[in-house]
Amino acid sequence: MISFARGVPAVEAFPQEELLLCTEKAIRGYGAQIFQYGSSLGFEPLRKLLAEEYGLAPDQILLSQGALQILDFIGQCFGGSGCSVLVELPTYDRAIQTLRRSGSAVIGVPLREDGPEMEAFEQAVRSSKPKFIYVIPDFQNPSGSTMSEVKRSKVAALAREFDFLIVEDIPYRKLRYKGSDLPQMRSLAPERTITLSSFSKLLSPGLRVGVAYGPREFISRLASQAESTYITPSLLPQALVYEFIAAGLMPGQIKKLHALYAPRLQVMLDALEAEFNGLGTWVKPEGGFFVGLTMNKKLSAPELFRKAKETGLVLTDGRGFFADGQGDNFLRLPFCALKPEEIKEGVHTLASLIREM
Amino acid sequence: MISFARGVPAVEAFPQEELLLCTEKAIRGYGAQIFQYGSSLGFEPLRKLLAEEYGLAPDQILLSQGALQILDFIGQCFGGSGCSVLVELPTYDRAIQTLRRSGSAVIGVPLREDGPEMEAFEQAVRSSKPKFIYVIPDFQNPSGSTMSEVKRSKVAALAREFDFLIVEDIPYRKLRYKGSDLPQMRSLAPERTITLSSFSKLLSPGLRVGVAYGPREFISRLASQAESTYITPSLLPQALVYEFIAAGLMPGQIKKLHALYAPRLQVMLDALEAEFNGLGTWVKPEGGFFVGLTMNKKLSAPELFRKAKETGLVLTDGRGFFADGQGDNFLRLPFCALKPEEIKEGVHTLASLIREM
Repeated sequence: MISFARGVPAVEAFPQEELLLCTEKAIRGYGAQIFQYGSSLGFEPLRKLLAEEYGLAPDQILLSQGALQILDFIGQCFGGSGCSVLVELPTYDRAIQTLRRSGSAVIGVPLREDGPEMEAFEQAVRSSKPKFIYVIPDFQNPSGSTMSEVKRSKVAALAREFDFLIVEDIPYRKLRYKGSDLPQMRSLAPERTITLSSFSKLLSPGLRVGVAYGPREFISRLASQAESTYITPSLLPQALVYEFIAAGLMPGQIKKLHALYAPRLQVMLDALEAEFNGLGTWVKPEGGFFVGLTMNKKLSAPELFRKAKETGLVLTDGRGFFADGQGDNFLRLPFCALKPEEIKEGVHTLASLIREM
Repeated sequence: MISFARGVPAVEAFPQEELLLCTEKAIRGYGAQIFQYGSSLGFEPLRKLLAEEYGLAPDQILLSQGALQILDFIGQCFGGSGCSVLVELPTYDRAIQTLRRSGSAVIGVPLREDGPEMEAFEQAVRSSKPKFIYVIPDFQNPSGSTMSEVKRSKVAALAREFDFLIVEDIPYRKLRYKGSDLPQMRSLAPERTITLSSFSKLLSPGLRVGVAYGPREFISRLASQAESTYITPSLLPQALVYEFIAAGLMPGQIKKLHALYAPRLQVMLDALEAEFNGLGTWVKPEGGFFVGLTMNKKLSAPELFRKAKETGLVLTDGRGFFADGQGDNFLRLPFCALKPEEIKEGVHTLASLIREM
């Protein structure tokens, strides 16, 4: 079985021995603090460390149980029944689900290789008056696209003009395998941007350490929501992330991930080039976890899903990524947790399957 | 400063060295599983262990970020706008807040020393047709009362007659310092009871390991809600609880807590007897964390709160525990995290204060 289903890190990427040492250090150094109830903002030493990195105060940072949990708080605090939220088409499937739960109408704007189609974006802003937009500007999940600098500026300008918040989700930003960083949305509209990120892709998802940062007033609303949901997040995993960063281990870990994932991305792009010419189009990301593939043929997702399974290939239904219910001929291809041979074989099997359909 | 404000365990109760050893064992034995995404039900080895204790299947058990987080899921899955939920008057303040957030109407039924006033309970059931009730049958937070066996049976019978669910929250159940256990609501109405509990009071609240168990159909709805909220709970703390129990350390830990807390409860009861005769009434619990004190005088909670602070006493506003907005002359007195001298001094200061008001 080859699974193109979930965007998970490679198990061999978890720095288990280092994490074990960090745990010991965390418990010895902060036991009384870790084991007791604490602030709903999360473990303070880690907030202080991140505050330095981000150039913010520690109370402008919320640590929570992964970034999705924070998006849920954002939906509850800033969205709700009668509110609109703009997302990209396609976008992270769980984000759509979680945002809808708040009662908000989730409206999609088509995505190009370099970010949202700006005419459609502006039109959607004018007609739906969103409370906030949710975007993944770097190596987007599921498409792999990165928003151009011009579009980032335009989105920031529209946010000011039409008074909406920007929620930027950047879990893959540090997994850039070539090229250079583009400015964060936060740097373009600091007064109205909440940045979400997480240590799931850099260190370990099972730890569930997500982070939100931005203007104090927004973070404090999210912290109240956190408090009335779980009082305090799990502090031990946050202390472990703290010790890992404080020990200076993060740059080496990121380097290790680049060395592991960059070749896998290249194998994926080569395989698509070899197998999918004329069959589909795809973004060529410079980082991240995913290549989004749009097939030229009109397909039925459930049929493709079923046939793929018969040939030992697990896919994710593309429709989950589209807030407008489209996505039948879209596939998200994660490459990080697969070995190069698996990627090649998976893409080959998929192409054969689609040619037959 | 003496704080009667929060119901937290004593720091000296955290078995730090044992937890450190358990963490090492957990990471060595289950690293790949702990650090990756996992089931939204939580860490399987712990679910299997608890399943044996509870006489259930592992998929009838949900592990989450503390029991309050699960109550939030319950509110979202089984309550909502237009629904009623019955609670005790007083009850756990955070539970009221969290249940209200789902849009449910939270209706209180007066509590006596041996559980809800049954006439009022039945009347409230008839008039509000609750979807579920939320009760803390053992050493209730904040009153300290324990529901009698007769009342438990009556509640179970009414639940069947009027078709509502029972959510029983039993975090203090194993902290019985004398007397004998009464039947869990689950044993009286297994088909309609969700039991909530947690390792916060037994091991450590900072770990955030809460548990819900009951009929598979309910647990599976809660697990879906969990998945679209945080995908997977923090697995390392759950693995740590697993190792702690698997190593046979829990009975000794509970014994240690009894030895630490039972004398503190006695000091609290003696101090109340000495200071509050004629000033108020209180429940005499046989376990748990709290004694609820109802003062005879009509008081203003904010005034009492302020004056107490001036004399170095931190109180919790009693009104937070009452879904009907009452509670001005109610105080929750937690005794576990205070040393005997602090309890004596605190009760003495409080009594002097109230005599003067």
